[in-house]
Amino acid sequence: MKKENIVLVGGGGHCHSVIDVIEQEDKYNIIGIIDLKENIDKNVFSYKIIGCDDDLEEIFKKCQNAIVTVGHIQSNTLRKTLFNKLKRIGFNLPVIISPLAYVSKHSLIDEGTVIMHQSLINANVKIGKNCIINTKALVEHDCIVENHCHISTSSILNGAVIVTENTFYGSNAVCKQGININGFIKAGSVVK
Amino acid sequence: MKKENIVLVGGGGHCHSVIDVIEQEDKYNIIGIIDLKENIDKNVFSYKIIGCDDDLEEIFKKCQNAIVTVGHIQSNTLRKTLFNKLKRIGFNLPVIISPLAYVSKHSLIDEGTVIMHQSLINANVKIGKNCIINTKALVEHDCIVENHCHISTSSILNGAVIVTENTFYGSNAVCKQGININGFIKAGSVVK
Amino acid sequence: MKKENIVLVGGGGHCHSVIDVIEQEDKYNIIGIIDLKENIDKNVFSYKIIGCDDDLEEIFKKCQNAIVTVGHIQSNTLRKTLFNKLKRIGFNLPVIISPLAYVSKHSLIDEGTVIMHQSLINANVKIGKNCIINTKALVEHDCIVENHCHISTSSILNGAVIVTENTFYGSNAVCKQGININGFIKAGSVVK
Repeated sequence: MKKENIVLVGGGGHCHSVIDVIEQEDKYNIIGIIDLKENIDKNVFSYKIIGCDDDLEEIFKKCQNAIVTVGHIQSNTLRKTLFNKLKRIGFNLPVIISPLAYVSKHSLIDEGTVIMHQSLINANVKIGKNCIINTKALVEHDCIVENHCHISTSSILNGAVIVTENTFYGSNAVCKQGININGFIKAGSVVK
Repeated sequence: MKKENIVLVGGGGHCHSVIDVIEQEDKYNIIGIIDLKENIDKNVFSYKIIGCDDDLEEIFKKCQNAIVTVGHIQSNTLRKTLFNKLKRIGFNLPVIISPLAYVSKHSLIDEGTVIMHQSLINANVKIGKNCIINTKALVEHDCIVENHCHISTSSILNGAVIVTENTFYGSNAVCKQGININGFIKAGSVVK
Repeated sequence: MKKENIVLVGGGGHCHSVIDVIEQEDKYNIIGIIDLKENIDKNVFSYKIIGCDDDLEEIFKKCQNAIVTVGHIQSNTLRKTLFNKLKRIGFNLPVIISPLAYVSKHSLIDEGTVIMHQSLINANVKIGKNCIINTKALVEHDCIVENHCHISTSSILNGAVIVTENTFYGSNAVCKQGININGFIKAGSVVK
């Protein structure tokens, strides 16, 4: 099967992890990275930085798939802006799922979301657009994660939790089942 | 190979996760769910609630395997009562192991216990009857987990820990190696 | 393919876990264990304790691969002494990687290090000699872990963290991205 092309938008640390996921998934051919103007022609692993934001309309002519690979710690503003820009241009933002992750067939994941290595989406979960479900994170049965959230590395959302749009849920955070979570949750938090 | 029939006793959130495990294990055919009388004929995913506790003796005539799918957070009384009732009627309570979990061949697991997705039972471990080893939990080498315990999501039992009967060990809890644990351990605890 | 021989140095609890990893990896044939003189001829699982430290030069004549299977909690002095002794004699200290672990092809791991079950080494990581990356531990993108460290069970090193030589990073510890970590980090710590 011929692999489709994809362009990655953002060339930092999170991009390293996403490259590893896309390579393992073996479904897309990474044609290059979009980053700051001053980084053009530098490499991220073996992939070239082929342009900056201003070049996206031109790139769309040869590559219709894109994914936001900027991270989300202090703020998700840049991730949202890029997601909306990509949509406006007409890009398809696929769901990227690591073959080392598990996603229940009873669950739904929306466009532009990446499901990183060894994360787990249990049964009857809904995950919105442009989210990061980071490495080893657990989203338990009956959860809802709204758009533009980052569920960080090894964090745990227990059963039937609702995570509001734009939430950062920190690394190794854990929470009571059935609650609502929003805002900025620090790494290692126990949320009740 | 023809799959054997199984009936699930308890139709709440934990049942959603157990259904996902049983479907992935692909060893048993779920004939239906037992729940409260007022829920009869409702569905849990594509499975019908076919009866309440009073119907178990009748159901046993056509299905000899059962598993308790009620959760255990505040109390395990209902799980124990149901387990004992099922045993009295004559049901076989198999061990259910997710194909995404790992159980060392040097370890033993007793009847009616479920080993959920991506959990890990390391070498030289003994786990009792009617336990939940929940999603992503880790039971390290040389541990003993007695009957009717719930080792919650992403929790960690380090080497040679003994967990006494009826213990609830909360989500993302961690403990020192070689200690005894019993009672109700809150999510996110560090037990020394 | 004929399996190569290996001798394990240290017959305690950590050895139980390493045996499970080596058996699953199915690459080495364990010829026996080295432990204290008074334990010679006892068994660890089905493997005999065939000698003590003083016998290593003799054992090297029939087995050129060795791995340190002593644990590292309070101190790593014994692990370092044994590693250096094995190297002096001429032993090859292979990297042992559980088939249940994931190591990015963009990462490097040095001799004598064991990567235990369900641990994950993400992209662009360097791990030194004689380390334990214990069960379910996560080493995120761009980390450096120097020699003789123990990254304990289910702990999380977030992106671009540097862990100095001899560090103990406790079970379920988590840390901010991009920081330096050294010394003794207790189980369940949140390091900023």
